[in-house]
Amino acid sequence: MSKQVNGKVYLVGAGPGDPGLLTLRAAQLLAGADAVVYDRLIHPDVLKHARPRARLLFVGKEGGGESVRQEEINTLLIAQARLGRSVVRLKGGDPFVFGRGGEEALALEEAGIAYEVVPGVSSGVAAPAAAGIPITHRGVSGSVTFATAYRAGKAPDWAHLAGSETLVLFMTGSRLEEATLGLIAAGRSPNTPTAIVEAGTWEHQRVIEAPLSGIAAKAREASVGSPAMLVVGEVVSLRSQLRSLVESRPVVSEREQFLKVEAGHE
Amino acid sequence: MSKQVNGKVYLVGAGPGDPGLLTLRAAQLLAGADAVVYDRLIHPDVLKHARPRARLLFVGKEGGGESVRQEEINTLLIAQARLGRSVVRLKGGDPFVFGRGGEEALALEEAGIAYEVVPGVSSGVAAPAAAGIPITHRGVSGSVTFATAYRAGKAPDWAHLAGSETLVLFMTGSRLEEATLGLIAAGRSPNTPTAIVEAGTWEHQRVIEAPLSGIAAKAREASVGSPAMLVVGEVVSLRSQLRSLVESRPVVSEREQFLKVEAGHE
Repeated sequence: MSKQVNGKVYLVGAGPGDPGLLTLRAAQLLAGADAVVYDRLIHPDVLKHARPRARLLFVGKEGGGESVRQEEINTLLIAQARLGRSVVRLKGGDPFVFGRGGEEALALEEAGIAYEVVPGVSSGVAAPAAAGIPITHRGVSGSVTFATAYRAGKAPDWAHLAGSETLVLFMTGSRLEEATLGLIAAGRSPNTPTAIVEAGTWEHQRVIEAPLSGIAAKAREASVGSPAMLVVGEVVSLRSQLRSLVESRPVVSEREQFLKVEAGHE
Repeated sequence: MSKQVNGKVYLVGAGPGDPGLLTLRAAQLLAGADAVVYDRLIHPDVLKHARPRARLLFVGKEGGGESVRQEEINTLLIAQARLGRSVVRLKGGDPFVFGRGGEEALALEEAGIAYEVVPGVSSGVAAPAAAGIPITHRGVSGSVTFATAYRAGKAPDWAHLAGSETLVLFMTGSRLEEATLGLIAAGRSPNTPTAIVEAGTWEHQRVIEAPLSGIAAKAREASVGSPAMLVVGEVVSLRSQLRSLVESRPVVSEREQFLKVEAGHE
């Protein structure tokens, strides 16, 4: 075993949830993987692209110190690759957009394991779109900032974030009220249109709309869970003009049919 | 013909260039489209997913007033849909990230044409990744801003953009010097690591790295063309630690093989 050639690790973005938003390259790598290491926010239909004999290893965060867990994941990836396996490390959205892909890449680099990064459709782009919100729009918003509502060891820079034309705040969770208060205190108008997109692009997606000052209360009333994303900016008001987009999201059955056809090709 | 039921328009992100980064849903829609309306920055292998009898309509911007051209595209999409056709409007990257997808959606909405938006892998995420740059990285950058170096009727807000942890500036083109001077004048350190990614994820991708104060001159020397993207921030320096990523991008032949297999399934 010690003479075996090392395998390779693919750090792959699985997209926002909707299995139709997986890339061709990701589907191809899943079909050839010996092991798939995946998180909590991966749609079950995405995993169906893995070949039947692939080892599916769930490493979703559930309790425990976060940084310790990340080290364990790094160790697992390295160990699997050292067994000569082709390993797909599947991440929600894109590996480099709050996906900790850079940390895994550095660990693999240090261990001398070959790896590759396969970008995915970011939830920061797709979840607002699925809610009928174009994150940039000529004459309305010429820039967009992606940030998280929580940062280890350091508060988000609300002063800077408040000045973003469009702000997409990932992982709002229990920090939603703190975030809206931070943005308002830093000078963002309490009347700014905002929306919460819960489970963007998933079958159970929900969208809640309110001015910045009222969104936290409305989200609490609606018992918004995880994952959820806060979109702040005038672009949110375009939703009211894009009714078809808001009302006629493609039904999942269309896609399931496609996935069955795909699976039949294996 | 006037009694024909209207078709549907799909505003589809084709991803950054690399045909492997097309989504499954985009490939499926291309395979069923009667007409494909596409721009300059679409990889020829992406168009191979269209069925042989589909009308391929090129609407890439080449001279002419930009806003007039956009109106012509809107008119074309509406006219094609009114012929009862299934129309794929294929855009580089994502339709809502500087893709003018919102404008097309509004025009379709107004005309009473059914439409759908299919997000794509944004070049703002994938081009830096293909250059070995994670746009966010724990302890280095907790936010990223996407903006353009040029805005019709209004200069970019350099003061705000200069404060971004990671800044990804699309369509730098001839405005690169103006952008770097604007950022430095607004307080960004001239020593900030930056990179230009030309044709990110394409076969002919090039990456040029320099401090913010020197990148414009270096890009000029190298005759950087279009499309090109400027990445500004400490994350750029991670490139030097991610050598495998920088050196071993997958060869295109691997993907071409896959595309041939896919084509065989039609």
